[in-house]
Amino acid sequence: MKVIFIGDIVGSPGRDIVEEHLPLIIEKYNPDLIVANGENAAGGKGLTPKIADELFELGIEIITMGNHVWDKKELYPMLESDLRIVRPANYPDAAPGKGYTTVKIDGKNLLIINVSGLVYLDNLNCPFKAVEEILNNVTYDYAIVDMHGEATSEKLAMGWFLDGKVSAVLGTHTHVQTADHRVLKEGTLYITDVGMTGPYDGIIGVEKEVVIDKFISKMPARFTVLTDRPYQLNAVFLDLNEKIITPIRIVE
Amino acid sequence: MKVIFIGDIVGSPGRDIVEEHLPLIIEKYNPDLIVANGENAAGGKGLTPKIADELFELGIEIITMGNHVWDKKELYPMLESDLRIVRPANYPDAAPGKGYTTVKIDGKNLLIINVSGLVYLDNLNCPFKAVEEILNNVTYDYAIVDMHGEATSEKLAMGWFLDGKVSAVLGTHTHVQTADHRVLKEGTLYITDVGMTGPYDGIIGVEKEVVIDKFISKMPARFTVLTDRPYQLNAVFLDLNEKIITPIRIVE
Amino acid sequence: MKVIFIGDIVGSPGRDIVEEHLPLIIEKYNPDLIVANGENAAGGKGLTPKIADELFELGIEIITMGNHVWDKKELYPMLESDLRIVRPANYPDAAPGKGYTTVKIDGKNLLIINVSGLVYLDNLNCPFKAVEEILNNVTYDYAIVDMHGEATSEKLAMGWFLDGKVSAVLGTHTHVQTADHRVLKEGTLYITDVGMTGPYDGIIGVEKEVVIDKFISKMPARFTVLTDRPYQLNAVFLDLNEKIITPIRIVE
Amino acid sequence: MKVIFIGDIVGSPGRDIVEEHLPLIIEKYNPDLIVANGENAAGGKGLTPKIADELFELGIEIITMGNHVWDKKELYPMLESDLRIVRPANYPDAAPGKGYTTVKIDGKNLLIINVSGLVYLDNLNCPFKAVEEILNNVTYDYAIVDMHGEATSEKLAMGWFLDGKVSAVLGTHTHVQTADHRVLKEGTLYITDVGMTGPYDGIIGVEKEVVIDKFISKMPARFTVLTDRPYQLNAVFLDLNEKIITPIRIVE
Ligand SMILES: [Fe+2]
Ligand SMILES: [Fe+2]
Ligand SMILES: [Fe+2]
Ligand SMILES: [Fe+2]
Ligand SMILES: [Fe+2]
Ligand SMILES: [Fe+2]
Ligand SMILES: [Fe+2]
Ligand SMILES: [Fe+2]
Repeated sequence: MKVIFIGDIVGSPGRDIVEEHLPLIIEKYNPDLIVANGENAAGGKGLTPKIADELFELGIEIITMGNHVWDKKELYPMLESDLRIVRPANYPDAAPGKGYTTVKIDGKNLLIINVSGLVYLDNLNCPFKAVEEILNNVTYDYAIVDMHGEATSEKLAMGWFLDGKVSAVLGTHTHVQTADHRVLKEGTLYITDVGMTGPYDGIIGVEKEVVIDKFISKMPARFTVLTDRPYQLNAVFLDLNEKIITPIRIVE
Repeated sequence: MKVIFIGDIVGSPGRDIVEEHLPLIIEKYNPDLIVANGENAAGGKGLTPKIADELFELGIEIITMGNHVWDKKELYPMLESDLRIVRPANYPDAAPGKGYTTVKIDGKNLLIINVSGLVYLDNLNCPFKAVEEILNNVTYDYAIVDMHGEATSEKLAMGWFLDGKVSAVLGTHTHVQTADHRVLKEGTLYITDVGMTGPYDGIIGVEKEVVIDKFISKMPARFTVLTDRPYQLNAVFLDLNEKIITPIRIVE
Repeated sequence: MKVIFIGDIVGSPGRDIVEEHLPLIIEKYNPDLIVANGENAAGGKGLTPKIADELFELGIEIITMGNHVWDKKELYPMLESDLRIVRPANYPDAAPGKGYTTVKIDGKNLLIINVSGLVYLDNLNCPFKAVEEILNNVTYDYAIVDMHGEATSEKLAMGWFLDGKVSAVLGTHTHVQTADHRVLKEGTLYITDVGMTGPYDGIIGVEKEVVIDKFISKMPARFTVLTDRPYQLNAVFLDLNEKIITPIRIVE
Repeated sequence: MKVIFIGDIVGSPGRDIVEEHLPLIIEKYNPDLIVANGENAAGGKGLTPKIADELFELGIEIITMGNHVWDKKELYPMLESDLRIVRPANYPDAAPGKGYTTVKIDGKNLLIINVSGLVYLDNLNCPFKAVEEILNNVTYDYAIVDMHGEATSEKLAMGWFLDGKVSAVLGTHTHVQTADHRVLKEGTLYITDVGMTGPYDGIIGVEKEVVIDKFISKMPARFTVLTDRPYQLNAVFLDLNEKIITPIRIVE
């Protein structure tokens, strides 16, 4: 079972570089499934049905989200109706959408879970308990967890907590790929952050001048996705049977 | 001008792997200077004069710090007196120690600055202004900034803010090396986080069971540095003239 | 049904002024029950069995807690065994202790709940859901909720959320009594914070010089409960049948 | 020297109740100056020139601000040009506006300073140092500090820090008046929070249903100022010579 997981796609630059490089990635890795984090696909802030459909047309089959899941209200009905989009599982039950989905590939159930860390992020339900409950109630042969979080400690804790229970724990949210991809002791594939997919010369996808100015002036600012080239694509290739995790990092 | 910068050394495992591998690294890269972040060198929490001396004996020539700088009171006089230890420059003036130091190598002044990010960390003085003030008042040929911070956005902002003004901006604090080492547009060497040096199978250096339990139980816990092998060493090699940044990542 | 609720008792000054004034308060208000928040009763940090017993001997019948509940490990068994001490109900199930207790007075069940806000405090379970679940599962004639929280918005939200469902929502934690005691529309008695009981000339109970110095120097400091006179006692008198809430504020 | 200080005016309900009651307050207290915190006067979020002028027409002579100072861009030029509006003094120098103003009354200089706490708020410059610098550089006979902050500890620390150096330290921002108005040891008048001026049955001025729902659902929500009666006016009367601070709390 081979999977490509693409890190947070940011705006049109993210979609463009996916369009350009995904065919080559498919050719090279021959994946059974392509997953992407899409929480920043719509202008950096959330996702719309239109852009979700664009991502599906590009070949992405499952979209995970994160703290930006509620940025666009027009997405809410699609979160409910479209099984291909998952939002963090640890939002309260009443929130639209669901925190996991399953895909049947060659007779095997591949479970994809999205969950949010709590450290420096919103006060949601316990992510550890949320994932545990899904694992206890869903039948799966393979499971991939997108742990959307800020703190390295919390993502590593999730990796070790799930070691041996899921196929892979992949961090997202910081928009910078980490160099610590590995196989944990009981066989779970792990990386603290997959990184982002979008502009390369900005600050986590955004035009840098405004961000720097905000840090110095302490005044609010409106961020804009940088559209200048080059772009970057950050992803991981996972071979769930052979226990291989290979980072993919393209700048062009 | 060639420099080795070693990421946050955590406890005796960190010191042990430095002892084992630094001679090989020196042989391979032939650096003019060896710098290390030592904020976790004493049992994971701060630094003591005794352990600072141990690090100097291992060949480390300059020690930078971070948010753990005040963990051991016995260090305070040494922060004042020993020019080889620098703490974040953006603490108030009354705090012991200083935020930068200079080293003369082959007639050139190499300036080393330590500064702390503010996002998700303490409310210190503005790190951007603090660095700017040092750069405006100190004569230097080369400058390396250890930007000790949590948020990727703030570290990237510091990188771009200083691009062309300093030789390198190196992030520390998250204890996980990032895969984004690069040369910025105006020639500054950059990496979001150098990563940590210490145990490999813990959670940012600490025994994993206690951390996981704390995240789930929400109850306080006392963390202990993991001493089991393997250990990891994370560092970067910098060639400040040739504009080269090479990550070093050893697990053993 | 008449109740005295005493705000966070801080150290020996808090216990002393309770000892001096509680007899007079009892004489004046003739309460059926005396409740106190005891999270700072042991030297400002948590509670011990010995000091809990001291509070019981002073006439306090139920002790509620807050974020300091885990400061003293020796309290954990007593949290489990002694029905007179309640800790925030929204800690995970595995935590020692329980989040509510009931007292039978004149054939009526008085339910006392302790719950913690999440804003600027720990990421616990949802306090609104936690209280709702208790109310749905416990038989009660009267209910008092100690909402231990920082943000006024969250405490007011709890007040309005429970308006008509409980007898009283009393905020604690900020250590400063608010002037907004009132009867909400559906009859629930409410105050955003009852205030603290302990030294008067410190900073929320602590010697002021150290706190000021910490805010300015940004360096860690060890806080000590101020023992100089005068002391203050902050409490509320509640008449649950007559829908009366009367603040008590003694400085001596 | 007698002053009325009105706590955070929220939206049109806040302006309405000021209009209705300020004449009576003036008649009763005969103040030399009327100051109000106006950071929420424009629909709960910031201030506009039009609404600032409305407040001036109502008789308010000086407007202080807080963390909402940047909500309305159209205010920025007025922050620069109009000496009657002050924003927190501890924003970086480059920010529009100024952190203090002086008013000459009967030949005496009354200095009004606005400053923001840092705890749970933005990472600004040190508020203690910022106020100290103003006091060291401005000639004044009386000084009133609006300490806009969340944490009771930080506001109390400011009070004690300035005790004997200024006439009054008045907290704002939590929108709930505290019951701890007092004269500090060296004569400074103090209250932790003056409270808000606007709707009475909302949550710090906002319609309660949306706030409760947000706390429970963890989803973003758009807040609206409650316009139903009754309204509340929270203020303090200060007699700077006689060392008197009297809370004013009107609900109607
Ligand atoms: Fe993202
Ligand atoms: Fe995110
Ligand atoms: Fe560290
Ligand atoms: Fe650190
Ligand atoms: Fe307390
Ligand atoms: Fe507390
Ligand atoms: Fe306000
Ligand atoms: Fe405010």
